[in-house]
Amino acid sequence: MKKYNTSPISGMQELLPSAQATFDQFKSQIAEVFHRHGFQNIETPTIDRTDILLAKAGGDTEKQIYKVVKTAETATEADQALRFDHTVPLARYVVEHENDLPFPFKVTQIGRNFRGERAQKGRFREFYQCDVDVIGRNQLPLEYDADVIVTLYTALQAFKLPSMCIRISNRKILNGLLDSLQLTTQSAQIFNIIDHAEKVPASTTQASLVELQLNPQQIQTITHFIDLNGPRTSIITQLKQDFPAAMEHPIFQEGINELDQVLQAIECQIPQPELAIADLKIVRGLDYYTGTVFETFLSDYIQLGSICSGGRYDNLATHYTEHRLPGVGGSIGLTRLFYVLQASHLLQDYITQPLDYVIIPLSADCTPVAYQLAANLRQRGYSTDILFSHKKYSDNMNYASKVAKQAITIGAKELAEGQYSVKDFASGAVQSHQLPAELRLAE
Amino acid sequence: MKKYNTSPISGMQELLPSAQATFDQFKSQIAEVFHRHGFQNIETPTIDRTDILLAKAGGDTEKQIYKVVKTAETATEADQALRFDHTVPLARYVVEHENDLPFPFKVTQIGRNFRGERAQKGRFREFYQCDVDVIGRNQLPLEYDADVIVTLYTALQAFKLPSMCIRISNRKILNGLLDSLQLTTQSAQIFNIIDHAEKVPASTTQASLVELQLNPQQIQTITHFIDLNGPRTSIITQLKQDFPAAMEHPIFQEGINELDQVLQAIECQIPQPELAIADLKIVRGLDYYTGTVFETFLSDYIQLGSICSGGRYDNLATHYTEHRLPGVGGSIGLTRLFYVLQASHLLQDYITQPLDYVIIPLSADCTPVAYQLAANLRQRGYSTDILFSHKKYSDNMNYASKVAKQAITIGAKELAEGQYSVKDFASGAVQSHQLPAELRLAE
Repeated sequence: MKKYNTSPISGMQELLPSAQATFDQFKSQIAEVFHRHGFQNIETPTIDRTDILLAKAGGDTEKQIYKVVKTAETATEADQALRFDHTVPLARYVVEHENDLPFPFKVTQIGRNFRGERAQKGRFREFYQCDVDVIGRNQLPLEYDADVIVTLYTALQAFKLPSMCIRISNRKILNGLLDSLQLTTQSAQIFNIIDHAEKVPASTTQASLVELQLNPQQIQTITHFIDLNGPRTSIITQLKQDFPAAMEHPIFQEGINELDQVLQAIECQIPQPELAIADLKIVRGLDYYTGTVFETFLSDYIQLGSICSGGRYDNLATHYTEHRLPGVGGSIGLTRLFYVLQASHLLQDYITQPLDYVIIPLSADCTPVAYQLAANLRQRGYSTDILFSHKKYSDNMNYASKVAKQAITIGAKELAEGQYSVKDFASGAVQSHQLPAELRLAE
Repeated sequence: MKKYNTSPISGMQELLPSAQATFDQFKSQIAEVFHRHGFQNIETPTIDRTDILLAKAGGDTEKQIYKVVKTAETATEADQALRFDHTVPLARYVVEHENDLPFPFKVTQIGRNFRGERAQKGRFREFYQCDVDVIGRNQLPLEYDADVIVTLYTALQAFKLPSMCIRISNRKILNGLLDSLQLTTQSAQIFNIIDHAEKVPASTTQASLVELQLNPQQIQTITHFIDLNGPRTSIITQLKQDFPAAMEHPIFQEGINELDQVLQAIECQIPQPELAIADLKIVRGLDYYTGTVFETFLSDYIQLGSICSGGRYDNLATHYTEHRLPGVGGSIGLTRLFYVLQASHLLQDYITQPLDYVIIPLSADCTPVAYQLAANLRQRGYSTDILFSHKKYSDNMNYASKVAKQAITIGAKELAEGQYSVKDFASGAVQSHQLPAELRLAE
């Protein structure tokens, strides 16, 4: 017999049923919040045209994309590939169906994406992302930046994550600052250095800026800038006071005003505004963001990285259409979040047995009543299994304790008395119940 | 500007938001029924090892499988591929996690599978399948055959499909019959002819059997056999009476007893037993079924083919383990079912607007109240959007009518009176409502 490797491919998440039940519950709670906040769900195909997927991409994305081939093709010929995020297929979808969509189009996508990354802890090659986006036609009010953040915040709140904090900035502020410092040509490198600033000591960030040949004044300005974080009013005041030269710059001003407005709109909508703060270190690695940017951390687990991020992009679909489609969006990395909770031993609090009841008929003549009791319980919304087994009682109870919260046993003697017995596994309590009148034996 | 083709790849389903909302509702209704019937959900990775996926396959499957490659590989080297059904990954999963699973393992999988079929009407290259399976260790009572069928039947009942009928047989009956007719060597071809019998005239079936050099007596026996269909008691009686020679054959007898027991167990559990009948024409094309087999048709749309089918297989995972893991399972082809309903103009009855409310603040000073009213409605479970727009009133109402059942407008004048106005799009009615006390202006 050929020996097969039956483990899932490395980088793929595969859960046992009880963990899967918790994962599914997370997913449906997120979907439920997105829906309640007025986002409409769509699904794009997993497989799309390679040229569409790679129109804007480059670098890592091009290296990581999975191509899809039939029997005779090679990867270089492959004109089909697996989507690596929801944003590119969304751009295609909006262009394709533009005339049939309402704008602003508030849309959510929850599904699996694929990246052939080097497998390592917490990095997945197949992973769920839960996206919300709002796409406007020609223009899109700033209120939607807040709408996206509030929706994602509310979805995450459902998990009672410890020490969650959303950190928000606006790229225009840094762009204006760098322009006022005459550093526009080096801005890509500086964005990159700031993006990594949290993961390295301050001295490394300093050294990187020195390496770029910035003068001490410029370096001091930038390091002071990225250290700013906190509640809206104090940060907006500090930005206006501490950077008088930049305040002359219209983009710097515009960025501050936008950040102020977005944070104000968030304050109106969430019960704990201190959990959504300004943080000027947030820039987001990807290049397509143009205004608001945000990332979400668990403050006690900063090293685990962001679990939810996004921002504003001026034009979703530049490559596919000449129409202007500004958007704002964000995404919860659910597979990653789930892994993080598991690795931090926070997950056990969420896990429960998947089913409500297992009914165990103790002899064949009890089966018809078991069927009817199951139908009765299911109609009332309880998940109910009937165990058919020739094994011993203790084995059957053991099975039931693994899949359900309670076991119901029906034996001939109890049946004659119109009763059944319920064992609750959490408390260990066993109780006798009367069968519903219509299920009692006629005699 | 390069011209991109923004349509989805042929054979991929892509829905507009309102149709998607209906599709999602179908999917969650099915999942809910599976759960209530005691099946635990799992998800296997979309990508799996090619040798695992193709261990048993051959023929069409091998031609249709999508291989997955990174930059430099060719399809022939590809050791990873997209799953084409849920059964093969389930076999791998059960072998991999055997020690951590409860047996009988009642499991459901709802997800997308992939086959590079020639694109044609109603055939999809990416499609949802909703599977239930019960896997035993060493043995698996016959009650689970009924359990799978009852669960699938209940899930489909939720859609109030017109003229749905589940047609059930047992392969042992035909195997026993063919053996008693000394036709075992031709059995694969005869199974194939019977599998197609419904799609061609009776004369074509006759001709195919003649071509196989069956004698008139054999042909008469087989054509009489496959014409048998109807309620349990009459079919069981007919089988016993009309095939006295076959009744000497233990496998024929065993098949009849199994079919009788499965149908009886179904009768105990479904309100309309006449919708689950015996039909000896049902054999199922795939070769791995060993006992119970079933298919589901809409009697008024027979030409659309089966929307839900499955059966019993003696050993799920022969290729990956020497342990005996008998199983029974079935699957609803949701993408196909949805397409069928759409093509038969039955879908419109299910489609509704995705959201409950769109709130339209008529001026900026109404926004804070809009936020609070939205929070209030969302807390009560209503999906609620706030529209921010600088367009005219009529454009805004038009937007609302496209995405929601009702529009709420809040203007400064009404606000001063502690009121808001609700328009119901179905009836056209407009009503004034009092704002909840806590949302009224302080003055």
